[in-house]
Amino acid sequence: SRRKLMEEVSGVAELVRELQDSASSLISKTFNEEQALRQRTLTLDSNIKKLRSSIDSAVKKSLLDPKEAEKLGEELDRARCILTDGDASFFLPSKAKGTFLKMFLGPVNVRANGKDVQLKVKEEYNSYRDRTAFMFLLFPSILLFLRSWFWNGCLPTLPVQLYQAWLLFLYTSLALRENILRVNGSDIRPWWIYHHYCAMAMALISLTWEIKGQPDCAEKQRGINLFLQWAIMQGVAMLLQNRYQRQRLYTRIALGKARRMDVVWGETAGVEGQLWLLCPILFILQGFEAYVGSLLLRTALVGVVSEWQVVVCGILLILMAVGNFANTVQTLMAKSRV
Amino acid sequence: SRRKLMEEVSGVAELVRELQDSASSLISKTFNEEQALRQRTLTLDSNIKKLRSSIDSAVKKSLLDPKEAEKLGEELDRARCILTDGDASFFLPSKAKGTFLKMFLGPVNVRANGKDVQLKVKEEYNSYRDRTAFMFLLFPSILLFLRSWFWNGCLPTLPVQLYQAWLLFLYTSLALRENILRVNGSDIRPWWIYHHYCAMAMALISLTWEIKGQPDCAEKQRGINLFLQWAIMQGVAMLLQNRYQRQRLYTRIALGKARRMDVVWGETAGVEGQLWLLCPILFILQGFEAYVGSLLLRTALVGVVSEWQVVVCGILLILMAVGNFANTVQTLMAKSRV
Ligand SMILES: CC(C)(COP(=O)(O)OP(=O)(O)OC[C@H]1O[C@@H](n2cnc3c(N)ncnc32)[C@H](O)[C@@H]1OP(=O)(O)O)[C@@H](O)C(=O)NCCC(=O)NCCS
Ligand SMILES: CC(C)(COP(=O)(O)OP(=O)(O)OC[C@H]1O[C@@H](n2cnc3c(N)ncnc32)[C@H](O)[C@@H]1OP(=O)(O)O)[C@@H](O)C(=O)NCCC(=O)NCCS
Repeated sequence: SRRKLMEEVSGVAELVRELQDSASSLISKTFNEEQALRQRTLTLDSNIKKLRSSIDSAVKKSLLDPKEAEKLGEELDRARCILTDGDASFFLPSKAKGTFLKMFLGPVNVRANGKDVQLKVKEEYNSYRDRTAFMFLLFPSILLFLRSWFWNGCLPTLPVQLYQAWLLFLYTSLALRENILRVNGSDIRPWWIYHHYCAMAMALISLTWEIKGQPDCAEKQRGINLFLQWAIMQGVAMLLQNRYQRQRLYTRIALGKARRMDVVWGETAGVEGQLWLLCPILFILQGFEAYVGSLLLRTALVGVVSEWQVVVCGILLILMAVGNFANTVQTLMAKSRV
Repeated sequence: SRRKLMEEVSGVAELVRELQDSASSLISKTFNEEQALRQRTLTLDSNIKKLRSSIDSAVKKSLLDPKEAEKLGEELDRARCILTDGDASFFLPSKAKGTFLKMFLGPVNVRANGKDVQLKVKEEYNSYRDRTAFMFLLFPSILLFLRSWFWNGCLPTLPVQLYQAWLLFLYTSLALRENILRVNGSDIRPWWIYHHYCAMAMALISLTWEIKGQPDCAEKQRGINLFLQWAIMQGVAMLLQNRYQRQRLYTRIALGKARRMDVVWGETAGVEGQLWLLCPILFILQGFEAYVGSLLLRTALVGVVSEWQVVVCGILLILMAVGNFANTVQTLMAKSRV
């Protein structure tokens, strides 16, 4: 048995050395093959761009019929779609990671390796937003309920601050996740991310904002009350938005499995109806957001509360409302154009 | 030219399709090969464990000489080291990602693919800590300086809150980065991460803590003053700690390049001297940390300031001091034992 043990130990040591060799050769082989594909992808990408401008100039010089040019253009679009949406997309340089992610995470790579993993990240993001929307409804509702029924119309400091701390965490994590989605090829408009930066700033500022108690609570806490009501409405909108966006994702997955290159043209099919229901609600919400912002500004200017926090929060709310409105309209316009 | 354009377009389209095929076959081939290596790695890992216990039981049954057993044990250690520190380590299951990372980032993969990238992440973390330590010295120094020379001994609210917000961001990003290092195979003790969770909580709480002004500023702001002084000292300690840890990393890289498997035994060589200089400073700092904590508790109990924030911050500081002390001692003991 002693002899056998010694043999086994040296056998294992030998196997480990072999494994180490296979592992390092696999890693370097994969690296080289990926490098080659990366080169091919980049070359093709630039060739497509060059061809596009040749076609344009050929049309201008009347060497090419506009009809034909359009057909060629479509073929190029289709080719580019395969490039950016298919497996080759991993070998295209990813969107720059952005300062926000670098600030929080450092230089680590957050790109998912594989279309399936990317979709999983996206789905998880959607279900995270669902859970969030639920809390978004629950948290302020409980606060407002307790305020009328137990706290005699006067919110105590601690629960409100807990809520604000939760908001800060929530917006930070949403901003991080959306930046990660962007690196993974999502077409999310930058504004929706900036919007969460503004919301982070607002949550942080509201934490430093002293919540005044008796006497005259109702007067002093008007800003917070409005804010909580707006939060409840936002919860409802988020739920609807999530429903729409999840369905949109499923449509894309389904289409992607069938004919990946057609995704860009047909993707909204089947959920357009929902979009027309969602948008009026979004617009109402954005209007209310601006209204809450202006009320905050007014309380500060009239002089009931004169802290700088109130002014800044008011300005931020109005800024977010305007930006949300502009970007929703732009999205709708882009969709109806196609 | 028209004919040529059309040919070029269909040529590109053809190339794109070929590229897509190569890309997807490379991805699936790599996946399969990795899967096979993963299996081999897991098997070897469990074989090593089994052999270890066979050796132990053989010694107990006197079938094996303890001297020989030790030699076999060392050979197994060496094998395991190659497994966990070499290229095969990527095929071992990584340390669980932990709730903190999942909460902030979702299910995305933050494991660096390649030993070099891992080292880069680690180096970037070190230089981030350097920049941080610099701010850690600068920020509170400026506040204390302005307080004595311009603000008549009375800190205004806004700059202090800016500082606290910066602390919150800083500790959050450190906690995220350390969790990422852990996933990438760092042996960092969990306590140093928990320590940053506590610090995050403290920064958040201190944001909600109203900073009282005139009259009697000096009395009311004693807690904050002490805290700022402690922060300056922490900056000094961080700089020293970084110097030591960076040198340690370089030693490891240098050793790793020569004989990777010896890293574990010889890694502290060359920096031990610095460790014995660093530790007394760390202990003094930890003592001061506990002292600041107890002063905060006392002010709260005596009744000068009676907000709950003061009590909780005091308790957190004492908790961190005790934990830091215990973990530093344990690290030193582990090092001297080897
Ligand atoms: C208008 C709206 C419904 C359009 O959604 P859409 O059809 O998905 O928009 P797009 O086609 O431009 O989407 C492109 C990408 O951005 C993402 N996206 C769009 N709006 C987003 C938002 N508000 N937050 C996060 N991601 C968003 C989509 O999921 C999609 O991702 P993908 O490329 O990974 O699939 C959506 O932008 C929206 O709900 N906006 C209003 C938000 C708002 O105002 N909220 C606060 C009210 S006070
Ligand atoms: C005691 C001390 C110097 C030991 O450092 P060390 O020799 O690197 O310790 P270890 O050998 O246990 O390190 C294991 C790993 O944890 C990391 N690590 C150790 N202490 C760390 C800390 N405080 N923060 C972050 N990472 C740390 C090391 O870099 C190493 O990482 P690696 O495996 O990726 O190379 C260090 O832990 C320390 O400075 N602690 C005191 C911190 C403190 O009390 N600060 C506040 C004072 S109030």
